Amino acid sequence: MIRVLVNGCRGKMGSQAMVAVDNHPHLTLVGGTDLGDALDEYIKDKGAQVVVDFTVASVGMNNARTIINSGACPVIGTSGFQEAQVAELAELAAMRKIGGVIAPNFSLGAVLMMRFAEEAAQFLPDVEIVELHHEKKEESPSGTALRTTELIANGRLKSNKKPGLTSSKGIELFAGARGATVNDVAVHSVRLPGRIAHQAVIFGGLGESLTILHDSFSRDSFMPGVCLACEKVVTRDTLVYGLDHLLF
Amino acid sequence: MIRVLVNGCRGKMGSQAMVAVDNHPHLTLVGGTDLGDALDEYIKDKGAQVVVDFTVASVGMNNARTIINSGACPVIGTSGFQEAQVAELAELAAMRKIGGVIAPNFSLGAVLMMRFAEEAAQFLPDVEIVELHHEKKEESPSGTALRTTELIANGRLKSNKKPGLTSSKGIELFAGARGATVNDVAVHSVRLPGRIAHQAVIFGGLGESLTILHDSFSRDSFMPGVCLACEKVVTRDTLVYGLDHLLF
Amino acid sequence: MIRVLVNGCRGKMGSQAMVAVDNHPHLTLVGGTDLGDALDEYIKDKGAQVVVDFTVASVGMNNARTIINSGACPVIGTSGFQEAQVAELAELAAMRKIGGVIAPNFSLGAVLMMRFAEEAAQFLPDVEIVELHHEKKEESPSGTALRTTELIANGRLKSNKKPGLTSSKGIELFAGARGATVNDVAVHSVRLPGRIAHQAVIFGGLGESLTILHDSFSRDSFMPGVCLACEKVVTRDTLVYGLDHLLF
Amino acid sequence: MIRVLVNGCRGKMGSQAMVAVDNHPHLTLVGGTDLGDALDEYIKDKGAQVVVDFTVASVGMNNARTIINSGACPVIGTSGFQEAQVAELAELAAMRKIGGVIAPNFSLGAVLMMRFAEEAAQFLPDVEIVELHHEKKEESPSGTALRTTELIANGRLKSNKKPGLTSSKGIELFAGARGATVNDVAVHSVRLPGRIAHQAVIFGGLGESLTILHDSFSRDSFMPGVCLACEKVVTRDTLVYGLDHLLF
Repeated sequence: MIRVLVNGCRGKMGSQAMVAVDNHPHLTLVGGTDLGDALDEYIKDKGAQVVVDFTVASVGMNNARTIINSGACPVIGTSGFQEAQVAELAELAAMRKIGGVIAPNFSLGAVLMMRFAEEAAQFLPDVEIVELHHEKKEESPSGTALRTTELIANGRLKSNKKPGLTSSKGIELFAGARGATVNDVAVHSVRLPGRIAHQAVIFGGLGESLTILHDSFSRDSFMPGVCLACEKVVTRDTLVYGLDHLLF
Repeated sequence: MIRVLVNGCRGKMGSQAMVAVDNHPHLTLVGGTDLGDALDEYIKDKGAQVVVDFTVASVGMNNARTIINSGACPVIGTSGFQEAQVAELAELAAMRKIGGVIAPNFSLGAVLMMRFAEEAAQFLPDVEIVELHHEKKEESPSGTALRTTELIANGRLKSNKKPGLTSSKGIELFAGARGATVNDVAVHSVRLPGRIAHQAVIFGGLGESLTILHDSFSRDSFMPGVCLACEKVVTRDTLVYGLDHLLF
Repeated sequence: MIRVLVNGCRGKMGSQAMVAVDNHPHLTLVGGTDLGDALDEYIKDKGAQVVVDFTVASVGMNNARTIINSGACPVIGTSGFQEAQVAELAELAAMRKIGGVIAPNFSLGAVLMMRFAEEAAQFLPDVEIVELHHEKKEESPSGTALRTTELIANGRLKSNKKPGLTSSKGIELFAGARGATVNDVAVHSVRLPGRIAHQAVIFGGLGESLTILHDSFSRDSFMPGVCLACEKVVTRDTLVYGLDHLLF
Repeated sequence: MIRVLVNGCRGKMGSQAMVAVDNHPHLTLVGGTDLGDALDEYIKDKGAQVVVDFTVASVGMNNARTIINSGACPVIGTSGFQEAQVAELAELAAMRKIGGVIAPNFSLGAVLMMRFAEEAAQFLPDVEIVELHHEKKEESPSGTALRTTELIANGRLKSNKKPGLTSSKGIELFAGARGATVNDVAVHSVRLPGRIAHQAVIFGGLGESLTILHDSFSRDSFMPGVCLACEKVVTRDTLVYGLDHLLF
């Protein structure tokens, strides 16, 4: 049994994490903390091996340092970390041989979708993305779609493949028909009431098609990934960025 | 048994129509004609009740006049007819009380998709179209997608409904992400090798989604519609534009 | 503005209906009643033109009689009505020239899916159903799938079409592979965590496929149909079973 | 440039392979042979480094031995090899340090679908398969679906995960509704005219769903995999079963 403390336990994600950890067969919930609590003391008093952190960007960096310096493994879902901050924390964790993860997305399905997209692009470089979200999402494409195009670009690079005609827009009778082009991937953003968060990565090859589709129906979808991360970080001695590095 | 003559019998579509008519339980193939044949004489000699015409725009209008003047019912798949030409033929057919059809698309599935899109838009005005075609299709959106947006506009008008936020593009981080806007419908065109011709019409409502998806796998898909048209036109006394007017 | 009373206002569906009616531009919420309240008096006191009823089968029949006898139009979502009960209420409503509806499903998307399935089956008789629900749904196929097979059978009958080989099961290497056969339609029930309620009606024709897909993401999806019913029943003078009879 | 000979060059697949190899930038077609030709002499005379074999089971084993004994790398699409035969050929190839592949399916999309299914099952053990084929396919489930269930079972085993309730059938109101159970995976086989070969592997997790969908539109889809195999086998010194072992 791994002893887990949840920091940010009164927030939306933190309170769900409390329940998920508590119900997990290999994890023991040793407590919850939030703003104003002395995180380092709680870690020691409760003997926490892992600290799940869902707080806000402004305090996230300090929390992460505190967790590592207290000898616990951080599982961080707080968003807004910059590259240099991740590097600093990775160095700190490496010095102390502590495993940890900072992840923008704990959904197992989304993480697998992105990994498979990268692998498939090595063999089928012609690919487009259609993502669907509720009508209140203002920005397009989604962050997940943008990240997926980066991974597709990586995949193509690994096998030295270039997309064919599909990166061309041909003749658009109405502007925008062929979508946005990001990293030589056409991305199409659908916004409709009723929808939550969905993405299809559609690969085309000679005489065939391969589609990887992820549907996110609720925020619950993050919890299995959080618990899996708690189980995995205690077996590692470095801090990684992205849940996928713990999966395989 | 209805007696059917196929004009343009040496072309791709005409030769398939010969086979389809010949195999149909309620139709008798009485012959095939092509450029250079005296169509009016054939119609009389063979006692054709229906003439299927898959030729080219330049001769299509004259063929249509000849068919009606010979007292046969035209089933015309030749493309390129203008509105005024259709009106002239409809008048000619009405005077002689002859049934007929000019149709840009004889695929039953595509015709049903478009009809359902029009009906659904009366109740669910928020809708977007994603169409997928092979990478050699130069123009986007497809003709079918453009026609579908017109029908959706009709549907909304019938029930006096307006689309909500979905007709807005929000903030496009990369231009084109939200597709083309045609008749207040966002249209997204995917072009990938392997694909043939596919279209999804995606409606969104409070807490739900309705999708009408048509996949065209081969040109064969036109033949059941051609045969159905042959059966229906002999029971009508006007010429219509679009197969849907014969279905319901 | 149509004056609407909600009976069963403390239940899950009733309380949502209160909010939906209250927010609707053409409806006025005049009150909510529940078990123990004198429904007939409320109707008169509040001058209700329409009564929405989401209660339980045991009291539903009496409620319906009371509503009609009070001169209001019933919009009934209570389940469990038998055919004879519906017939009795229809007769009562007809005598008093009162419009009303009893509907097992107020989701516009689901109702449209079923209607389109019936229409498409007239032309494409080969069809199978794949429905997906959460893993806690015990019975399979779903009620919606069973109802859809009845409508498909109606559609085939209208055009005197029979399904081809698809109603045959061929050789099942493992029992159940070809699904359940209901009204000569193969039905496949998928049960997976994460899912809510989804159904695909898949038609096959020569060289093409037409799929009608409904996704239900939340119970909210009933509310637009309830409000639409409130608007429509006041213009009718008979009671119908099924929301589709009010749509077209 | 790798020198490739095609054996079975007059067959459907062999003749396509001739064209595909001839058009490939890194492969040189050195000739085609068929029944009655002395394969070993051709290999030597033409200096073939790789021999593609699409023949029939009865001669496939002898061809494979001949290819390896001639010092060329076999790329074998002939079906019907038994486990013991594959083992014998692997041993023969290992002794001579020759790379080779025997593959039941050369479609890159199908191979990737199966690999991703195995990987995803490690994290999302609840999964069902829906496969769709044309109405003339007699047996169900398809060979690809059966193979996919084996890989899913492997994946679950690797991470010691068991599927939850989804392997239970619940209450089937009509027999077969919950599909066939193969390796604790529910498999549903749809048979409809118009369809070619399609498979969806649908994973369910808490609040989310991941679907891997493969569409095969034509036999052409095998050719990129055949060419890739030709490029890869010359860099290997063992014979593998399944194209996936050459991809990663």
